Amino acid sequence: MTSQFDTETAVTPIAPGRYAAAFGPGWVVGRAINGGLSMATATRAALAALNEPEGHQRWEPLTVAACFLTPSQQGPVELETEVLRAGRSYAAAQVSLRQPAPEPATAAPVERLRVLVTAGTLPGADVSPQRSVPAPTLPDPADCLGPRDAAADFLPGMTLMDRVDLRLDPTTASWAMGRPTGKGVLRGWLSLADGREPDPLSLIWALDALPPSSFDLGIPGWAPTIELTAHVRARPVPGPLRVEITTRTLYGELLEEDALIWDAAGRLVAQSRQLAGVRPIRTDRGTG
Amino acid sequence: MTSQFDTETAVTPIAPGRYAAAFGPGWVVGRAINGGLSMATATRAALAALNEPEGHQRWEPLTVAACFLTPSQQGPVELETEVLRAGRSYAAAQVSLRQPAPEPATAAPVERLRVLVTAGTLPGADVSPQRSVPAPTLPDPADCLGPRDAAADFLPGMTLMDRVDLRLDPTTASWAMGRPTGKGVLRGWLSLADGREPDPLSLIWALDALPPSSFDLGIPGWAPTIELTAHVRARPVPGPLRVEITTRTLYGELLEEDALIWDAAGRLVAQSRQLAGVRPIRTDRGTG
Repeated sequence: MTSQFDTETAVTPIAPGRYAAAFGPGWVVGRAINGGLSMATATRAALAALNEPEGHQRWEPLTVAACFLTPSQQGPVELETEVLRAGRSYAAAQVSLRQPAPEPATAAPVERLRVLVTAGTLPGADVSPQRSVPAPTLPDPADCLGPRDAAADFLPGMTLMDRVDLRLDPTTASWAMGRPTGKGVLRGWLSLADGREPDPLSLIWALDALPPSSFDLGIPGWAPTIELTAHVRARPVPGPLRVEITTRTLYGELLEEDALIWDAAGRLVAQSRQLAGVRPIRTDRGTG
Repeated sequence: MTSQFDTETAVTPIAPGRYAAAFGPGWVVGRAINGGLSMATATRAALAALNEPEGHQRWEPLTVAACFLTPSQQGPVELETEVLRAGRSYAAAQVSLRQPAPEPATAAPVERLRVLVTAGTLPGADVSPQRSVPAPTLPDPADCLGPRDAAADFLPGMTLMDRVDLRLDPTTASWAMGRPTGKGVLRGWLSLADGREPDPLSLIWALDALPPSSFDLGIPGWAPTIELTAHVRARPVPGPLRVEITTRTLYGELLEEDALIWDAAGRLVAQSRQLAGVRPIRTDRGTG
């Protein structure tokens, strides 16, 4: 059975270096498509362009740096890739992710994301890091807070929650009851709801799958991503991921959110940093 | 008096969106130009392209994500920019930094860096963060270790050391005497040697100005950067910077290096993460 994640990030070649995709009604957060899902789709296009000449899946994602230009919406997607480098150990590609202009029909497509992907070979699931950050201790998933525990008015339209099995450590979820701790940290167990096991591509998505850590600072409203750079460090083993996100710096109307992900074996497998705005920003026609 | 940094990162318009620059004999590390200097030059081109229509310096760098494709060398540089967005609060541009092919003279230029820059307005030097990371306590600069304290055979050809006034906290510099601590942390005071005060552009450079933190893990050899994303968080006040770099994860042949920079007032003003290789990599014809 093909997973929703794989179906909904699939890219189809339409010309050399160009791919089509479609953002479905799942993965909606607020009034936009989840940024992690659009990054995963762009990464899939970059890897397709890099792997195509050799006809096999040689290249895996090492880093994915994305500028968020306008919020992605449901509907068709066009991805244009440019191979920047194809060396012995490393490769790199650029992706422009665009969607048709809402109106008029003859207007140029609107760019959503511009992405730089570096690729290489990841340590396998049987490889231990020589040096790493230990996984946090989390309560048993049954003792964590899932979407069913959230206030009823918190989730309308947030279809992402149908795709995700997220269980937050209750000590980092008191903001959901109106009592943020002020620490700026959220931690929890994360899986895809249909049981699809994690791989390097789904880690790209998982780095941007939690509610913003600014909720725990008492900052209401979603924090639109301006830039997010993801690092994948190893192939994950099957099983639920442990995710920790932290905001250490808030300056004016900008904050950073750092994410760390460990696999079911407790190995650090991905990390990221994003810059996000904390001011309410229009999501209908761009964030500027 | 114009500083060496400003002279040597200057960009000259040669066509709409295209700029010329030149990497001089300073800023050499090993067999390549310092990555921070090439990132600062690319950022200068992006800001020139974004600011040009308004004729004044409205846009400042927020994030700079760079893929390092081939090592930069002394000589002429060509920068091609593409404005991705010019909104009310945020802007974004892409830069391709190229140098003439070494031979034959008719070959296409070689791309060194592909860079995504997001821009906005930074908090001023008089603004305090609402939340931040406290500056580390460092010994007086006179009690720190400068380039004159390094072994004579450590510096040949590393002309960067003539441009930089770097004073390492001795507790993080024992690797220079063959005794790495294994902590993977370097800290020190950093200024430009000619007294030029820090600004958002020089912070981009400063994030990649120290020896690699992997030296303190006992890993010999320079660690070539694969990708580096820089975040500038505020305009710095005049005076020496405090820089701390840390490697927390080493996995196979790849590590990350995180940098934090505080200004003379102790405000966190910049942060970055880079993915770097720890295997000796050829620097003459690319790193692949």
